[in-house]
Formats: sequence, structure tokens, C-alpha cells
Amino acid sequence: MDVVEMAARVKAASLQLQGVSSQIKAGALLSIAEAINRNRKIIKEANAEDIICSEKEEIAAPLLKRLRFDDRKIDAVLDGIKSLAGFDDPVGRTLLATHLDEGLELYKVTCPIGVIGIIFESRPDALVQISALCLKSGNGVLLKGGAEAALTNRVLAGIIVSASEEAGIPHGWLQLLETRGDVAEMLKLDAYIDLIIPRGSNEFVKYIMNNSNIPVLGHAAGICHCFVDKSADIAMAVSITVDSKTQYVAVCNALETLLVHRDIAARFMPAVKSALDEKGVELVGCPETQALIGVKPAAEEDWGTEYLDYKLSIRVVSDVGEAIDHINKYGSHHTDAIVTADPENAARFLEYVDSADVFVNASTRFSDGYVFGLGAEVGISTSKIHARGPVGLEGLVIYKYKLLGNGHIIDDYAKKKKTFEHKPLKKEFSL
Amino acid sequence: MDVVEMAARVKAASLQLQGVSSQIKAGALLSIAEAINRNRKIIKEANAEDIICSEKEEIAAPLLKRLRFDDRKIDAVLDGIKSLAGFDDPVGRTLLATHLDEGLELYKVTCPIGVIGIIFESRPDALVQISALCLKSGNGVLLKGGAEAALTNRVLAGIIVSASEEAGIPHGWLQLLETRGDVAEMLKLDAYIDLIIPRGSNEFVKYIMNNSNIPVLGHAAGICHCFVDKSADIAMAVSITVDSKTQYVAVCNALETLLVHRDIAARFMPAVKSALDEKGVELVGCPETQALIGVKPAAEEDWGTEYLDYKLSIRVVSDVGEAIDHINKYGSHHTDAIVTADPENAARFLEYVDSADVFVNASTRFSDGYVFGLGAEVGISTSKIHARGPVGLEGLVIYKYKLLGNGHIIDDYAKKKKTFEHKPLKKEFSL
Repeated sequence: MDVVEMAARVKAASLQLQGVSSQIKAGALLSIAEAINRNRKIIKEANAEDIICSEKEEIAAPLLKRLRFDDRKIDAVLDGIKSLAGFDDPVGRTLLATHLDEGLELYKVTCPIGVIGIIFESRPDALVQISALCLKSGNGVLLKGGAEAALTNRVLAGIIVSASEEAGIPHGWLQLLETRGDVAEMLKLDAYIDLIIPRGSNEFVKYIMNNSNIPVLGHAAGICHCFVDKSADIAMAVSITVDSKTQYVAVCNALETLLVHRDIAARFMPAVKSALDEKGVELVGCPETQALIGVKPAAEEDWGTEYLDYKLSIRVVSDVGEAIDHINKYGSHHTDAIVTADPENAARFLEYVDSADVFVNASTRFSDGYVFGLGAEVGISTSKIHARGPVGLEGLVIYKYKLLGNGHIIDDYAKKKKTFEHKPLKKEFSL
Repeated sequence: MDVVEMAARVKAASLQLQGVSSQIKAGALLSIAEAINRNRKIIKEANAEDIICSEKEEIAAPLLKRLRFDDRKIDAVLDGIKSLAGFDDPVGRTLLATHLDEGLELYKVTCPIGVIGIIFESRPDALVQISALCLKSGNGVLLKGGAEAALTNRVLAGIIVSASEEAGIPHGWLQLLETRGDVAEMLKLDAYIDLIIPRGSNEFVKYIMNNSNIPVLGHAAGICHCFVDKSADIAMAVSITVDSKTQYVAVCNALETLLVHRDIAARFMPAVKSALDEKGVELVGCPETQALIGVKPAAEEDWGTEYLDYKLSIRVVSDVGEAIDHINKYGSHHTDAIVTADPENAARFLEYVDSADVFVNASTRFSDGYVFGLGAEVGISTSKIHARGPVGLEGLVIYKYKLLGNGHIIDDYAKKKKTFEHKPLKKEFSL
């Protein structure tokens, strides 16, 4: 089956999936969890083969670690699916109800988007999580995982498809793409695919965004900032900086640039340097930073670089306004934090920093769908439309307007025989 | 000033506009209304010049009619602005509030999108309406109107800019583009523009969608259907068909294809033919339709054609399922209606027709932002993400996540020293 045929099948299934009940979807998720549990052995065997291949190809250790799908990770995935099954259905919620006129009622009701194309990295747990989110939100899905996890993904997709279809999910709703060439094909299929969510490197996401007419949701980079205001508690600022930078350096919500108010710099800088030195973080800074703690100079491009490593750039600024300007100029609109004891500066930071996630006195590492209570996430979006920040179930639905009349025609309103009343209705859609 | 510079200015202004209060925005809208009222003479003089030019260029009569900006249209525009000023601010609404843990609160709060690029047809009232919607929602805007209305638009934009900036809206928030070449430039400026809303012909909108990396919201075509079910009241079905097709043929929510249940066709067809003949509507149909009312044959391409004229294609189908399949295959996901007395078929139609607006026993002509009670609309979207159907103020905002902590770090949760509680909070965001 070629990619066009696969996409057409998912599209056809997605039209049926629109009307599948909450009960059937929740039941299908539990069936998937059971089937994965039952097939642990086969899954782990496939994963072992993937790992052997990857070791032969001398793949980097962190990638190998993410590829490994052991009992601990399977347990976590099963917990995730079961918890998702219990979530409220995001489909069929009435967002707005209006009495337009006697016998004429308008309802804005959530519904699935349709077909989602998702390209993700080597973690096999991502395949399960993404499939479960798409099923729960009633969307068909075309999946493309990392080549390293090909065998594990094939086994997992097979299990998910057969368990869900037996439980009443329309045939063909999930298709697994296998090659890089398939991805290039997929980007052209705007007739079948409504949204693409790419997860991966900066260059890869940019390539997707520049090569498709299909809307793309995601983030190319996570250039996250922390601004230490003059009123900051120094111990808190050090703790948040260290956590944001070093708790996990290879993730998009890790800190890349530290901005420090001039009035606190002389006291804060030595403290944060000593804490970061302990973690082995390389520091580069502006001339004032260099003068205070003797680090190497930061080049202009450092301010726009996502290191994803034990490296941090530091700049002294004169106030919260200059910090905001720096972030809006060099940042990637992902996650930015202020450490301050001043509510006015906190308010200004939250209002004017143009990022998906803006934090006061908390680590940038909190920006995550699970942490936010969304259950899980398909990714983090820095887009300015549809969904921003961690994207969970709500980002996978849209709405339609349903109008119920009894023979109403517009000509009666054009001729002023009738007029609109536009009164809010306090009720859920029903026929 | 070239387009890049203009876009950069709007972008800079938009960053300030994020924080402008509801009061200032509402006041600025009232100032705009006053200034337009005060400058009626200048506006009408500019419009008269545009009309003379257009008459010389022998522009079609409907276009000329839309171009004319007389006192009646000015009054309507002023009413619209004043009513918009009184609407709730779409910015700053708390969509979700969650207690993550002791002292750690998350808020999802609406905010402006940023910079919107809007390309619209010859009606000068569109310029005023669009500018007012963007101001109310806190967005900067790059506007490009039809060349026929160039002088009127220039005068109106000048009045809007000076009245709003005097009332406290950041300098540079609205810029008017003047040439087609400017539009081509604008499509490249994804660094400054967050969303493009094109209004115009099918070809024009498709051109925009295919030539920009910036997200586009709108609709290329409005191929709207009405399905007359076997249980339909014949008089109601005739009335809805005539209204949907002929009340205003040149608009996107006008009917283009009529689908008729086989079991009612023999009774309904002659009635609807006679009513449509009276309005001078040309009919084409499938073989069964031809056999019943002797119309010309419809070609395959008729089912996918937006006539925008006194022409209608008619097809006999065997049930609501076949009607849904036809609509999902040939339609443009804009507006589709069913006429039926059967609630089950109505429910099925609403659920499975994959369109922005799905109606039961009402004319397709109701799909409109004003009719829906949205105040006004920037356009109608057939996109599957962000905003669907008539797009009013709510479609011009997005949200950001605001997290308030007091020194929280993720390491405490990773090490199980703390756990997330994820309890819904019943309160609006405040610091």
C-alpha cells in the first residue's frame, strides 16, 4: 500500500470515527492496554532486535536509552492509557449555545479534527501515547517513528490496530509509515491530512514547516529564558536556574539563557556560578557578566542558540522591560520564567513576554502536558494559532456549528418580518 | 516605507498592544466611530473619486455596488463599531485554572494572536469592520483592500489610525498595503505575521494558501448542500431550497447542490422546480432528476462547482448515508443543511457531515458571524484547526499558560519528594 492509499484509508476511517461513542473509545483504550500487557514478550523481543541493530550502527548512548522499551516503560505506558480512558471525552462538548430566534437554536460543539500526521523520535512509548490521544479525540492518524525503533513500532502498531478495531474503532484509522520517503509524500497530502505534528530536531521541524501546505503544530526550538529580577530571593533564583538548566539538559524546556538585573548581579552571579560549576555547566556571558565572574564572552549567535547541553549564556539587563525585549527578540516563544518578589514586574513579564508558557518563581522544566494536568501531550507548540504550549486532548479537537430550525429562512430577517434575539442558552446540545 | 518595515512596525506595536486594557480598547473604538462620523464628507468625496475611476474602467455593476460607501453604509459601520465596543474583551479570559501543588497554580489565559494580515475585497466597510475586530482583540494588522477602493481605504485607514492612536493604542498597530506586489511580499514575512486571512475568489485564496508559510484562515469555496430527506415537509423543503439558492446568489453560503431522497423525489421535484423556475434558476441534474423534471444533465464537475449564480445541480440519493457521502466527497466543508422530520437522520447528518456549519431545517444562508451572534466576522473558515465557520473575536485570540510558583523546581517531583495534585481551581487568573 502506498502513502496516498494509506492516507485515503485513514481519511475514510476518520469520517466514521467522528461518530464513535465515548464508551467505545474508552473501551478500545482499555483493550489496547490489555493487548500490550498480553504481548510484552513479543514487544520486548522486537525491541531487543532494534537495540542490537542500533548498537551495531553505533548510535549515541542517549538515543539507545530512549529506544529501550523495558517492563518499567511498558508499565508507565499502560498506566497512561488507563488514565486517559477515564478522562472526559473531548468530543461532543457544547462550547456555546445561543437562542437566535423562536425555534432557531445554535450550538458550537467540539468534534475531531480529522486526520493527524505525526512524526516522532525514537521512543516507542511515544507511538503508544500518541495513538491513544488520537483515538480518545476521535482522530485518524498517520504515524512515522524513528528508523531505529522500526521493529518495535511495527509490533506496537499491529497490537494497537487489532485491539482497537476489535473493540469497534473503524478499520484503517491508524497507519504506520516506514520510510523517510513516506514522510516527503505525506507532506503533499493536504487532501487527506488536516494537521501535522512533527517532533524532532530544529532542522527537521523547520523542514516540515517549509515543505507542506498542511498546517503544522509544534516547535522548532526551545530557547528558554530565566530573568532574575532585582527583588529576587537569591537562593530561590539559584535553585530555579540550576533546575531549569541541569535537571535534564537535552529537552526543549531546559534553560538556555539567564538574564540578570544589574542591581542584583554582583550578589547573584557568584552564587549561581558556583552552583553551576558544580554541575559542570559551561558559562558564556555579556561583558558585565564577564567582569563579575570571569566567564568566556558570549557571541551574538549565543543568544539565539538552543544548546541542549551543559552550557548557558548569561546577560545583565537594566530592568524587566529590557529582559522582556531580549526574550521577545531572541527567544523561541516556548517557556520563559521570572524570579521576583515584585508582583508588578511579575505581571508585566506574564503580560508582555510573547511565549506559550510564562512562569513566575518556577523552573522552566515545568512546561509539560503531564505536569500541567493535561493527561499527556502530543507535543509542545510555539504556534500562535489553534494550540499553544503542551498540546493534549483539547488541541486535537475543533468544533462545528449545529443550527436547529423548523423551516427558518433568511429572507424573513432581510425583510424585517423577524429579528434575531441572540440570547445565551444554558444547555448542552441535544436533538 | 516598504512592506518589511511596515510589518516590523506592526509587530513592535502588537507586542505593546498585548497589554492594553479593555477600557482603552473600548474607548479607542468609540473614538474611531466619532472620527468617522466627523469625517463623512472627506470619506464620501474619496469614495466618489474611486467610483468615477471604476466606472471609467467599466467595472461590473455588483462590484460598483459593493464599492459605494454612502451614509446608509457609514451608519451601519458606526453601529457595528459601537456594538463591538460594548462586547466583552476576548483577551484576559481564564480558560482553565489548576492547582498543581501547594503554592503552584497554573492558568490558561486568552491573549491576542499578534499580527494578522488581512486581504479583502472591494467593500470599504470591510476595512472598518476588520480593523475594529483586530483592535478589540488586541492584534496588530496589515490590511490590503481592493484596488478599486484605494482612495476610500486610504482615508478610512488614516482616520482609524489617528483616532485610535490618540486614544492610547500603540503607534503603528495598523498599516495599509497598497499594491498587489505588497501582498506577495507579505506572504514571505512569517517572522512578523502570525496569521493571514484572505477574502476573495476561490483562485485568489488558493494562491495565498499555496504561497505562504504563514497559517491561513479562510475558505476557498462554498459548495453548500441541502438534503431533502424522505420525511421532509415539502413546503418547508421548497422554501429552504429557494431561500438558500436565491436570496443572494453571489455569496459563499448560497446553495449549489440539492440532494433529494428517492422516496420523496416524485412529489418534491415538481414543486421545487416550479418555485425555482419562478426565480429564473437554471437546473442541471442526475439521470433520475432528468427523468422526473426534464432538466439538463449535470456533468461530474457540476458536483464540485460553486456557481455563485442562478444555477443549481440536483441529485437523487437513496438515503441520508448517501447524502452524507456525497457532501463529504464533493463539498467544501462550509455549510450544509438537511430538511427532515426524522430526529435520527438529523442527528446522523449533524454528526457525520464534515463541515463547519451543519443545519437542520434552516436555510444555508444563516451561516454568518452577525447572524450567529458573534458581533461581526473577519471571514468564514473551512480550516480544520483554530477556528471554523464564521470567525469573530474568539478566532482572533489564542492563549498562554501562566504558572505561579514560589521557588518550585522539577527535581523535587522527579525525586518523589513532592507529587502533583492536579485539582481544578474555580477562579480567574490574578497575581
